Amino acid sequence: MTARRTQVAIIGSGPAGLLLGHLLKAEGIDCVLLERASREHVESRIRAGVLETVTTDLMKRLGLDERMNREALVEDGFNLADGDQMVRIDIKALTGKTVVVYGQTELTRDLIAAAPQRDLEIVFEAGDLVLHGVDSAHPKVTYAKDGAPVTLECDFIAGCDGFHGPSRRAIPQHLAREYIHEYPFGWLGILADVPPCHDELIYANGPRGFALASMRSPTRSRYYIQVPLTERIEDWPEDRLWDELELRFNGISQHGVTRGPALEMSIAPLRSYVFETMHYGRLFLAGDAAHIVPPTGAKGLNLAASDVLYLSDAIIAHYRRKDESALLGYRDRALARIWKSERFSWSLTRLMHSFPDQNAFERQMQVAEMDYLSRSPAMQTAIAENYVGLPV
Amino acid sequence: MTARRTQVAIIGSGPAGLLLGHLLKAEGIDCVLLERASREHVESRIRAGVLETVTTDLMKRLGLDERMNREALVEDGFNLADGDQMVRIDIKALTGKTVVVYGQTELTRDLIAAAPQRDLEIVFEAGDLVLHGVDSAHPKVTYAKDGAPVTLECDFIAGCDGFHGPSRRAIPQHLAREYIHEYPFGWLGILADVPPCHDELIYANGPRGFALASMRSPTRSRYYIQVPLTERIEDWPEDRLWDELELRFNGISQHGVTRGPALEMSIAPLRSYVFETMHYGRLFLAGDAAHIVPPTGAKGLNLAASDVLYLSDAIIAHYRRKDESALLGYRDRALARIWKSERFSWSLTRLMHSFPDQNAFERQMQVAEMDYLSRSPAMQTAIAENYVGLPV
Repeated sequence: MTARRTQVAIIGSGPAGLLLGHLLKAEGIDCVLLERASREHVESRIRAGVLETVTTDLMKRLGLDERMNREALVEDGFNLADGDQMVRIDIKALTGKTVVVYGQTELTRDLIAAAPQRDLEIVFEAGDLVLHGVDSAHPKVTYAKDGAPVTLECDFIAGCDGFHGPSRRAIPQHLAREYIHEYPFGWLGILADVPPCHDELIYANGPRGFALASMRSPTRSRYYIQVPLTERIEDWPEDRLWDELELRFNGISQHGVTRGPALEMSIAPLRSYVFETMHYGRLFLAGDAAHIVPPTGAKGLNLAASDVLYLSDAIIAHYRRKDESALLGYRDRALARIWKSERFSWSLTRLMHSFPDQNAFERQMQVAEMDYLSRSPAMQTAIAENYVGLPV
Repeated sequence: MTARRTQVAIIGSGPAGLLLGHLLKAEGIDCVLLERASREHVESRIRAGVLETVTTDLMKRLGLDERMNREALVEDGFNLADGDQMVRIDIKALTGKTVVVYGQTELTRDLIAAAPQRDLEIVFEAGDLVLHGVDSAHPKVTYAKDGAPVTLECDFIAGCDGFHGPSRRAIPQHLAREYIHEYPFGWLGILADVPPCHDELIYANGPRGFALASMRSPTRSRYYIQVPLTERIEDWPEDRLWDELELRFNGISQHGVTRGPALEMSIAPLRSYVFETMHYGRLFLAGDAAHIVPPTGAKGLNLAASDVLYLSDAIIAHYRRKDESALLGYRDRALARIWKSERFSWSLTRLMHSFPDQNAFERQMQVAEMDYLSRSPAMQTAIAENYVGLPV
């Protein structure tokens, strides 16, 4: 058994763990990232792609925004459509802010690539991860590396290990409350090296259900359509999906849909989830480990970024000034923003999807909301300020 | 059989029929109002009490606003509460407009009282009302007055006879579409001559469900609470209701609840309903005959007023300029505003009530929306502009 020691053990090397590790290291706080998967796996996961200022500001603060600034697409607006009616939400004019399109995959690669030069240790393929004594003064994490057991002692554990990771489960059930809301559909996504059909994102609803035209770059498109939960990927040959996307977007997009071979296709269910509390003893949760939003509105990664901003502030205050108040306040500070992002994601999901049990009146409510939205600068501003990200 | 003739036969002497009759008469267009109930019954019905500018403007245009101007309370704002959190929506600051509190009962009395001097004929207790030949060039209405049958020939029929009247049923089912949405609760209301607990309305949600503190004057209060549809009025002795209202409002209101004997108590279910089309041949529907909103947000009477504004414009254009386009456009013009009011009433109803099948996450969405609303001038403006009434 190898025994090691660090100040902060970070479980998970997704964006939450990587951002937290870099932020702590930049302040001279010792930390180690433990990641169950391989580097190749982590660097190839297809995830979100729209970054709020809270996320880009962290990359800038870390001095790791060089490639992002060069490659990311700055978006001044996005579109909400219902049938033939499309409303552009001019986020720049309405809020003074923009978002950028930069794949989470790229962000993750940048953060991993910079780790060695910043002396940030990432242990990939750390197996059998177990958290111990999280409510004691001497927490530790045990794991296996190349078949050999390791014990990592630490002051704090940051659970950045996503929805399926072990960190959340280390909090006793009777101290926590779970809020779960499932949606009766999933998103079937396709990634392809073809130019996007529109220069800005289009969220589209209509009698055939939801579809999203998104992109990762001027030459890489990301599309989604709503599918029943019973649908299997085998039911969707690429041509069937492209046919459907042409039907949805050729009438309303600038350039029309360009077809191309899929780099990736997958179906994911939609879920809203909040785990209260995010703090137990020496363990703090951040990102998907504590909460899930449906992808509508692209809040997931950006919510992980604000969690990490708050948590890094709190850990830095502890080591720099022996100030514990920020650690004690972390949960409430994070949850205030999380619940509002959950609300926005939930409400945009409801506006833009077909619900199997929706009656004709409820369908008309979606149409009426789009009609109202198209004429109301106030309602457009409310949507825009959520889309660019509420204040941290 | 007595035979008579008029230009416009108006069925129903609620606010829609009365406003329409006065507007047409003011332009020299001949019309007769046929009302199934007695004058005493019509003048004693307890209904809504918050008037948008669209409604007060019509009274002003008719020169019938003298008592309203003297007695009505001008409201610069209203309140939305969830538990102990209360958000004031400053409608005057946010929109430049106000609403006034003036009972529909008072408005109805003013319009009926002014009928003789304006030579507007209202036939009360007109029984056995039947519409004939509404899709022909010679429509007529038959009814019985004091046991004697009467035939009223006319150019047009205006169906202002509410949800239960015969007008809507004269439109063939296969030409129409009904949109119906029922809510799993009703409102138990009490009217009492006691001072209101707060100077402005309070819509309150919370773990015990919805409650509304409203008023008709500085000395007359109107309160409601949400009750299950199975609840009967016998289950609610006045003291039980006052106890409940004190529980809801004593902590958040300026003056606290003052108890007093009930002038009226009743339970009404909540319903959203839209009947398309509002036009068939020579028949035009207006107000509750064509659409119902839940009372949340007080849109019902004001929507009747905008219908009548559009319909009177169209009938006047027909007689003055032989211009049929406004009559042909009436349906779409009215429905555009109706659907947006339906949307607002539906969305405020969902925000402010307990739903029996609501999960814990959905309850948190209500709390999060109030929290967001309390900090977002844009979202407050969106609510305020709907509350004061969208443009006609």
